[in-house]
Amino acid sequence: MKTRVTEALGIRLPIVQGGMQWVGLAEMAAAVSNAGGLGTLSALTQPTPEDLGREIDRCRTLTDRPFGVNVTMLRTMNAPPYDRIFDVIVEHGVRIVETAGNVPAEVFDRLRAAGVTVIHKCTSVRHALAAEKRGVDIVSIDGFECAGHPGEDDVPGLVLIPAATRALKIPVIASGGIADGAGMAAALALGADGVNMGTRFVATREAPVHPRIKQALVDARETDTRLMFRTLKNTARVLRNAISEEVVALERRDGGATFDDLRPLVAGPRGRATLASGEVDDGVVWAGQVVGLVDDIPSCGELLERMVAQCRAALADASRRCG
Amino acid sequence: MKTRVTEALGIRLPIVQGGMQWVGLAEMAAAVSNAGGLGTLSALTQPTPEDLGREIDRCRTLTDRPFGVNVTMLRTMNAPPYDRIFDVIVEHGVRIVETAGNVPAEVFDRLRAAGVTVIHKCTSVRHALAAEKRGVDIVSIDGFECAGHPGEDDVPGLVLIPAATRALKIPVIASGGIADGAGMAAALALGADGVNMGTRFVATREAPVHPRIKQALVDARETDTRLMFRTLKNTARVLRNAISEEVVALERRDGGATFDDLRPLVAGPRGRATLASGEVDDGVVWAGQVVGLVDDIPSCGELLERMVAQCRAALADASRRCG
Repeated sequence: MKTRVTEALGIRLPIVQGGMQWVGLAEMAAAVSNAGGLGTLSALTQPTPEDLGREIDRCRTLTDRPFGVNVTMLRTMNAPPYDRIFDVIVEHGVRIVETAGNVPAEVFDRLRAAGVTVIHKCTSVRHALAAEKRGVDIVSIDGFECAGHPGEDDVPGLVLIPAATRALKIPVIASGGIADGAGMAAALALGADGVNMGTRFVATREAPVHPRIKQALVDARETDTRLMFRTLKNTARVLRNAISEEVVALERRDGGATFDDLRPLVAGPRGRATLASGEVDDGVVWAGQVVGLVDDIPSCGELLERMVAQCRAALADASRRCG
Repeated sequence: MKTRVTEALGIRLPIVQGGMQWVGLAEMAAAVSNAGGLGTLSALTQPTPEDLGREIDRCRTLTDRPFGVNVTMLRTMNAPPYDRIFDVIVEHGVRIVETAGNVPAEVFDRLRAAGVTVIHKCTSVRHALAAEKRGVDIVSIDGFECAGHPGEDDVPGLVLIPAATRALKIPVIASGGIADGAGMAAALALGADGVNMGTRFVATREAPVHPRIKQALVDARETDTRLMFRTLKNTARVLRNAISEEVVALERRDGGATFDDLRPLVAGPRGRATLASGEVDDGVVWAGQVVGLVDDIPSCGELLERMVAQCRAALADASRRCG
């Protein structure tokens, strides 16, 4: 396949495994890159920038294909050492970075100066236009149905993808709501030059999470996600489980809930432990609505080849019906 | 074009103008049917069943192509005379009915016995499966982004359309979020056999609403809709205007709002008057998020021919990139 995204990233298939906290380890990224897509390490999953450097090196022992590093810049009290993280990324020769969150213009400038191709992930056309103006190479546009942070506009991909591809000159990767070749075909038809998947990649053989987590994604339907932190204007889409139901209930009680009230339930280490133990109700499990379309646990290689075949078949079938 | 929907409905293009209160008059339906799609009269827009009969006859003077009648069965205190409405539909030889809402199984049985092709509109896979079991011919599946009543599951088309087409044997019409040929191509790629549009058809030359309403749709962006009645579990997506902002504010106040509190703002005659006067802030104006993709006011003929050309081009371009 040949799109502006495969060409910009030097990959065979325009399928990106987006940044995923606790999941974006070398095994995951290398498996996707070896399958022809773009794997992505999550910078913040590593305890220190030096650990990230070692993970980058480790990933390189597992694949000789391009892979990226995701850096999500959160508004947080204890900010990670972002400067040092970008140092490490550049020093270790990473050529592709996926940014997300509130990225200062200097970061884009710095990455560009280092010859890094930047994919910036955002949830609205206005943010995408701002990113384009700041010189990012590719926008990954994340619809309402996505796992993680869909923003507060609640515009899903069927509208957001064409709104973005109409407005932007740079390539657009469609993110959220895609798990198979039909979704990929739809995204391409809507003008995207590639797709980004997270949830689908968690239910692959190579994903570094407990098999019971993968099975929970297979079992879940499209109605089995919840939006938490809506009342804090920091909405997050996660799998429906005991934790997310409790968080939503606390947010709905009279007077609502503060983040401090919710912290014991949603703390990162607790989510990480859940992914490792497979005790699905013990912590937050990120999932998009596309979980309803996830029905098996293939290898990344099987998944990507199947998607491409499905994508071509869906387009051929649709074209045939169009006469 | 040739899909299971064009074949079942006897139309040239698989593009349906869905039921729209106050808009689904003979001019609108006939314009869409003459353009090769399926126009639809809204039964409840007519004051009495006899008026509906006259509107059906009037539509027939404006087109010799198939058109449908929408019957939305609301939970309401003063129920319209549904039995009589279906009598009139059958007596006047209507061959296609779009149902929506809480339709008793007897209604489906009766329409089937009369040889009517039934399109049932619903917002979830479980409701679609129930409708299929009850013998409806086609399901129109309405995603979260749609105008009107998206239900309470909040699953948008990019996930809901493939979830429905995977689950159902009968043809699926994709509804919500589609306004152009790229969206149509996406829907076909996701397995749908046709598309349904409402908002897009309001911004056509033939739509029986004031030009200022059409211009308001052209001017609006994808972020310019509001969900009202969310707290009443009867969510409705409408254009952002003074009325919908006030309704949402009342729902958000301490203690919330009852429907009786909101009735003076949202009463049907008030919305109808707004469509006629073009005073956009005077009443409820229904609109889906796809309003952000509506940029002009073509005739229905121009719109449909353009959509087909765009659809074919989008599929060809996507196929080319797939190698």
